[in-house]
Amino acid sequence: MALRWGIASAGNISSDFVQALKGLPPGEHRVVAVAARALQRAQEFAGRHDVDRPYEDYRALAQDPDVQVVYVGAVNSQHFEVATLMLQHGKHVLCEKPLALNERQARRMVELARSRNLFLMEGIWSRFFPVYRRVRQLLDASAVGEPRFVSTAFGDRLEDLDRVKRKELGGGATLTLGVYMLQLQQLVFGNLQPLKVAVAGHTNEEGVDVAAAATFTYPGQKIAVLSCNASLEMPNEALIIGTTGAIRIPDFWCPTSFSLNGEVRKMPLLDNQGPFNYQNSAGLAYEAAEVRRSILAGEIESPQMTHKESIQLAGWMDLIRKELGVKFRCDFEDWDSSELN
Amino acid sequence: MALRWGIASAGNISSDFVQALKGLPPGEHRVVAVAARALQRAQEFAGRHDVDRPYEDYRALAQDPDVQVVYVGAVNSQHFEVATLMLQHGKHVLCEKPLALNERQARRMVELARSRNLFLMEGIWSRFFPVYRRVRQLLDASAVGEPRFVSTAFGDRLEDLDRVKRKELGGGATLTLGVYMLQLQQLVFGNLQPLKVAVAGHTNEEGVDVAAAATFTYPGQKIAVLSCNASLEMPNEALIIGTTGAIRIPDFWCPTSFSLNGEVRKMPLLDNQGPFNYQNSAGLAYEAAEVRRSILAGEIESPQMTHKESIQLAGWMDLIRKELGVKFRCDFEDWDSSELN
Repeated sequence: MALRWGIASAGNISSDFVQALKGLPPGEHRVVAVAARALQRAQEFAGRHDVDRPYEDYRALAQDPDVQVVYVGAVNSQHFEVATLMLQHGKHVLCEKPLALNERQARRMVELARSRNLFLMEGIWSRFFPVYRRVRQLLDASAVGEPRFVSTAFGDRLEDLDRVKRKELGGGATLTLGVYMLQLQQLVFGNLQPLKVAVAGHTNEEGVDVAAAATFTYPGQKIAVLSCNASLEMPNEALIIGTTGAIRIPDFWCPTSFSLNGEVRKMPLLDNQGPFNYQNSAGLAYEAAEVRRSILAGEIESPQMTHKESIQLAGWMDLIRKELGVKFRCDFEDWDSSELN
Repeated sequence: MALRWGIASAGNISSDFVQALKGLPPGEHRVVAVAARALQRAQEFAGRHDVDRPYEDYRALAQDPDVQVVYVGAVNSQHFEVATLMLQHGKHVLCEKPLALNERQARRMVELARSRNLFLMEGIWSRFFPVYRRVRQLLDASAVGEPRFVSTAFGDRLEDLDRVKRKELGGGATLTLGVYMLQLQQLVFGNLQPLKVAVAGHTNEEGVDVAAAATFTYPGQKIAVLSCNASLEMPNEALIIGTTGAIRIPDFWCPTSFSLNGEVRKMPLLDNQGPFNYQNSAGLAYEAAEVRRSILAGEIESPQMTHKESIQLAGWMDLIRKELGVKFRCDFEDWDSSELN
């Protein structure tokens, strides 16, 4: 039976997500509605992707009884608001990364999902790529001994994009790029708690981070070193070094190959020619498949990307932003006051 | 005319240095004496390398009127003492990196050399490799635009070596490996002063750093991210990213190739088969040639590796050690008390 999707926001990533669903077996996924803040954009999206019901209002989408699960592809600053609205109306939610602007918002979203027995997942699509599944197996099998070092660099020339440079949209290199690096070290070091986080970086005129670097130390001589940069093209490769070997993952946020001790293994994407806006977006299908599996199994979180991990990621990003002096409005608001506009 | 070298300490690196000299034109360099703390080691070294006078005492070497310049290849904790002794006896000095255990020692050595009008250089041999000279030209010519990001990772399984693990020998990943990473960012960012240094790492049971990572931020959105590790084999590649391109330097501490925007350029070493103890030690000849050039020109420092840079390196290493809680005995001693034993 088809999982019935509603799409919140009609931007580039939402378009890629819907296009990616077309790479999965027919009958498994159906997009039944799309909402944008301008009706024309929703209609254009609906026409392009053959979606029945375009809405100019997220609330209308939330109230559509035919929608089972909503993909939230809005800008960062709307994730909390839109996902909360959907959960309040009984919809399961797959929300683009970062799940929220800060840890407090992330906790509220998780609490709401749990209280309603609804599925909620942060769209860390990387986690569901075949490369990640294989790397996880290799780490579990001690293929590189004990992993002790993770380094990632992730940079692209994005600093002039509104969604990256503007504070009120929840911009910044950390929320845009850093989250991918943080999720990888989280995957490698599992449940360990960092001993210390050392942070450095630069902010733009609006006070949003353009470049950030963080070093996490963990017990057992473990270290993770992360650099993200919204003003430079970087190699975008991850490196995991263990006591007996090393894994490299080119394009680590959407990888199609990795190497183990220098031996390259290719793991091509599903066959889906798009059109797509972003690199390897066909791979969004992997997370969509996991959402379907989880919901059909009655699970409210995916074991591949848990609520606890999302809360930890949000907390780490809070910490990095704090060190760099990047503060969002929601950071100053009381827990008890409504964070919905 | 041959530059007449004395060699202080008869260990592996001294042996490689003397062997490397044999790769230079005959008549330019001659090793006339060697000193070690055990006569037998000095004699064995002298026999192996055809050196006239083996001494069991550094003072005897310092007093040898035939010696013009001394190569100090002793363990880190002896650099200050031995180099000072040689300078006091009117010898020029090439001292292995790190020049000293802390900035105060480095400043005293530089002051002494300057007061006696003697040449003193820290043996950052990397700087004199053809790859470095070419990279410097490329940076000067803005071949990658404005350099904004330097990352280096340098690791090898050295943690069980006395000279690395023991505090009284001046051990630690930072002094052993980190100095190479620091000198590269120094070369790339020139006279800029860092805005902030963020440090993390791990120490061993003796309180010596086994792993260290540091992020330097500089004005103009510039960042350097360094990771050194005495317990893991790492890729040991440096990356310099500018606003319009990138340079990669494999084996960045003794490189024989680099790539500019992905295009590889090989720059092989001088032909010298050794035997050598360490990777690419034939390249020690480059710094030796620079020492000869400087001394013949009457210079007391090399423009490729200045006193100011050595003092800055020592200060940065002090800062990293301080953050990691790594303290040497000399850090607690007064400037005015004798640091010589």
